[in-house]
Amino acid sequence: MSVRIFTTAQDAGNAFYEALERNDLDLMMAVWAEDEEIVCVHPAGARVAGQEQVRESWRRIFASGQRLRVKIAQQVTLSGMMVEVHSVHEVISVIGEEAARPPMVATNVYLRTAAGWRMVVHHASPAPGTAAEEVPADLPKLLH
Amino acid sequence: MSVRIFTTAQDAGNAFYEALERNDLDLMMAVWAEDEEIVCVHPAGARVAGQEQVRESWRRIFASGQRLRVKIAQQVTLSGMMVEVHSVHEVISVIGEEAARPPMVATNVYLRTAAGWRMVVHHASPAPGTAAEEVPADLPKLLH
Repeated sequence: MSVRIFTTAQDAGNAFYEALERNDLDLMMAVWAEDEEIVCVHPAGARVAGQEQVRESWRRIFASGQRLRVKIAQQVTLSGMMVEVHSVHEVISVIGEEAARPPMVATNVYLRTAAGWRMVVHHASPAPGTAAEEVPADLPKLLH
Repeated sequence: MSVRIFTTAQDAGNAFYEALERNDLDLMMAVWAEDEEIVCVHPAGARVAGQEQVRESWRRIFASGQRLRVKIAQQVTLSGMMVEVHSVHEVISVIGEEAARPPMVATNVYLRTAAGWRMVVHHASPAPGTAAEEVPADLPKLLH
């Protein structure tokens, strides 16, 4: 197991996306808090909660063997005492695929723990567009 | 404007869903933090950030006139210093519609501010199922 200590939430966030690009399960789980409830929502996936389910979900994703490149854009950072929330757009491409993937919007929550900054929540879902004018006109009907 | 003070994150969360059911824009915005960056991701909608965009997004949703009933299920609560994150399933029905809506999974982040507990992030997206066995077998391909 990795014993990396992340001294900032941004360091933990960088390691999260590094793990995603490298299919590195040990690094991925070193980013997540060990002693807290943790929650992960993959795009189009059911919510998973707790160490065991979160690890298993990443193990399955990494086992697919696809290699991703992730660019993070338009980060909005919210800071509180011992907590940071990063709202980001993930621009993901799959090595070997020509078609671009739709961008994802992700909410990443980090807590400052005794073992440094750790992720406690990752919630990602497809973003229809990154500009306000691309919001579909029928948004209200899509609710909520 | 409302001057309601929410003494717990749960109170703020209850008021959030009350505002959603009542199409009450004043109550909705009383739930959100005033002096922080705030972020809202509606299902299938673009991310909106800041007071002005968040208020406008709710104004448009409430202007549709549809009346919702929201049941909250399977809440997972993460607590830090001055912060709480609630991961919930939203079971939403529209009054007058027979077809059930697919459940949503939402990440709601609350901070304890000088004006009581306030929401700073709401991220909602469709949940394919609420049980682990309903995770689609091709989840890895859907990434990330």
